[in-house]
Amino acid sequence: MIAKVTTMNEILEQALLYDFYGELLTDHQKDVYEQFILDDLSLSEIAEMKGISRQGVHDLVRRCQKTLEGYESKLHLVEKFLSIKEKVGRIDQILEECEAQKAEPSEIVRRVREISDTIIEEL
Amino acid sequence: MIAKVTTMNEILEQALLYDFYGELLTDHQKDVYEQFILDDLSLSEIAEMKGISRQGVHDLVRRCQKTLEGYESKLHLVEKFLSIKEKVGRIDQILEECEAQKAEPSEIVRRVREISDTIIEEL
Repeated sequence: MIAKVTTMNEILEQALLYDFYGELLTDHQKDVYEQFILDDLSLSEIAEMKGISRQGVHDLVRRCQKTLEGYESKLHLVEKFLSIKEKVGRIDQILEECEAQKAEPSEIVRRVREISDTIIEEL
Repeated sequence: MIAKVTTMNEILEQALLYDFYGELLTDHQKDVYEQFILDDLSLSEIAEMKGISRQGVHDLVRRCQKTLEGYESKLHLVEKFLSIKEKVGRIDQILEECEAQKAEPSEIVRRVREISDTIIEEL
């Protein structure tokens, strides 16, 4: 059984994995997997539309998930990108503090540079 | 014939591709390809060390290059990361101007935010 993703985190994670590594799937896999993960159709609905068995869709979706997770376990690029995104978000917060004049410019420079240095290290 | 990489750009590009996608090669491929691209050994030197033919090394290296380039042509992650790195570098430059008091804090905030926004869009 494929547990249809239920939490927001799981949905986001699977969509991110597809976003990063989806191009490494075949066209047929992409086609079916998008209906499952992005359009949120059920296995039965996809089976009917594609004229294949529900079990066939099930196996294909499962294989796609394993493939995408396999790439992430080796490359960790989603993890890396999320980390960079979080850091850029922190830079934005610091800029807001600066605008609200809650911090000195020299303090802003120090803190933004600290974050930008860790981003560079990660690249 | 594999043209041994000659320019600094080519060396950097191949090393970057390996850095990003190398984990998708087999252990044997990684082993041989690292000697070629990172340790800068010749095909003959690698062949002698590994006890395989020079032609065997040649074919393996070529296959690795094609595989790594294939991943980049589909995922463009090296391209993306280089773009982010360049932008973070620009943020650093702006901070330096701020420290040198060559720009107003409000101007700094505006310019840094402009760049951080484009980084977020790319992620």
